[in-house]
Amino acid sequence: LKTPKGTRDWSGQDMLLREEVFKMITDVFKKHGGTPLDTPVFELKEILAGKYGEDSKLIYDLQDQGGELCSLRYDLTVPFARWLAMNNIQAVKRYHIAKVYRRDQPAIARGRYREFHQCDFDIAGVYDPMIPDAEVLRIIVEVFEALQLGVTIKLNHRQVLDGMFAVAGVTPEKIRTISSAVDKLDKMSWEDVKKEMVEEKGLASDVADRIGEYVRHAGTISETLQLLKSREELVANEQVKRGLDDMTLLASYVEAFGIADKISFDLSLARGLDYYTGLIYEVINLPPKAEEGQASGKKS
Amino acid sequence: LKTPKGTRDWSGQDMLLREEVFKMITDVFKKHGGTPLDTPVFELKEILAGKYGEDSKLIYDLQDQGGELCSLRYDLTVPFARWLAMNNIQAVKRYHIAKVYRRDQPAIARGRYREFHQCDFDIAGVYDPMIPDAEVLRIIVEVFEALQLGVTIKLNHRQVLDGMFAVAGVTPEKIRTISSAVDKLDKMSWEDVKKEMVEEKGLASDVADRIGEYVRHAGTISETLQLLKSREELVANEQVKRGLDDMTLLASYVEAFGIADKISFDLSLARGLDYYTGLIYEVINLPPKAEEGQASGKKS
Repeated sequence: LKTPKGTRDWSGQDMLLREEVFKMITDVFKKHGGTPLDTPVFELKEILAGKYGEDSKLIYDLQDQGGELCSLRYDLTVPFARWLAMNNIQAVKRYHIAKVYRRDQPAIARGRYREFHQCDFDIAGVYDPMIPDAEVLRIIVEVFEALQLGVTIKLNHRQVLDGMFAVAGVTPEKIRTISSAVDKLDKMSWEDVKKEMVEEKGLASDVADRIGEYVRHAGTISETLQLLKSREELVANEQVKRGLDDMTLLASYVEAFGIADKISFDLSLARGLDYYTGLIYEVINLPPKAEEGQASGKKS
Repeated sequence: LKTPKGTRDWSGQDMLLREEVFKMITDVFKKHGGTPLDTPVFELKEILAGKYGEDSKLIYDLQDQGGELCSLRYDLTVPFARWLAMNNIQAVKRYHIAKVYRRDQPAIARGRYREFHQCDFDIAGVYDPMIPDAEVLRIIVEVFEALQLGVTIKLNHRQVLDGMFAVAGVTPEKIRTISSAVDKLDKMSWEDVKKEMVEEKGLASDVADRIGEYVRHAGTISETLQLLKSREELVANEQVKRGLDDMTLLASYVEAFGIADKISFDLSLARGLDYYTGLIYEVINLPPKAEEGQASGKKS
């Protein structure tokens, strides 16, 4: 007798702890004006199709039993977008804590399952630039404080990153693949990342070196901004310029929110789904031991 | 844009009300020593196979994507039994409020969906007879009181019912099908039920009449017990006798629990899955308008 691969039962102390953690997170979400949403555990297959790039192969499909073709939800973002569009909702802050499903090879030892929970807070609507981003960062800090966990939020800006690649000499069609190589800098040495860019991805060695100079910097938002603004060729790039304007605004907000010391503007952070357009970030839970907590970004 | 057939989103007031209702139910479950359990939304297909009789056709299967064959859970009872067996747990009171899935033709207007919630409280273990049954009845009354809903619990006993059919002259192989006809007495006239038994199910007319005499009675447990005990041919049947002993005990417990006035011992109640062996019941929510709330029974 067993549960399916990559799934588990929750009972006893585990379940009580889980409930307490979700309660703490929910309280923060509510404090920030979040309203709960719950969606079906499966969606029409066509709703999920084409939203997750090559990860689409990890989507669990229901069997065709003579009705609609459906799939288990892969995340809570696409169901939220479907709900917004279906109900023509222009602006809302919603939270959703629920199970999602990925037909991955689960690394149970590292806490990775096929059925696992996501805790999402999303802000939909038109606001002044960077206001929702700053609020989400503040919410993250409050959640980790409530859980009495140390936290650092690594962040970067998609426009800064893409503009920087362009300035370094990366052609538009190579930007995503080079971006994905750079994102490995937290787990691989610069030499290995450069090797991947040059030998596997066909980038000129001097272009790779220029990227290396740009991306191997991290600091507070103000520090990294200062560094970027000192490079004339970067500031001259329109895309970088837009990103820097956003980050300058964000710096003032996180300062006002008292969370500047929790944030690292890390130019090597390059993760992100295709739908991210602005801020991208990753939450690091410290101490006792650094581990990846959460990754997200702005969709527009 | 739509959700799959028989599913819905929950948001705003609906979601807040749902949370409040679940909180009230959970509080009663906890007060009675319930511990929470959460199981995966899907199980190995073989776990569910053969548990639901002809309703098995309503089970949602996941597509075979090159791994284990899985199905969405059909109820919370079988996952609970799987969890008990897997962990060799001898005794526990657990509650579980979660979504279950049935690939039925959903009657949305009557509140019937393909994805819907069940709120289960189960007592596993060996206890003195009828003690857990009485506690579950008490829990039901407390839940409906917390929700400020009027409630009547219709109940019957599987041994009384089956013994009664035997005394009336029903052969063993016809007991389940005749039982299912009798169960329709809350929606059909006695004439139509008799017609079904005689014309469709091949029962002798005089046997049907004897059944009609037995089953068309309902009252408090004490009243119905008195009636049954006055029929010598029933009391002489071993199976009926065992059921009457159970019901006599139960009468004293529900009296002590102060819930005797919420209970109707209704001899026409014949519902139930094959795994019910003792008490079977159905909860009627009154007023403003009677509707079927919940059906359950004792499994052993």
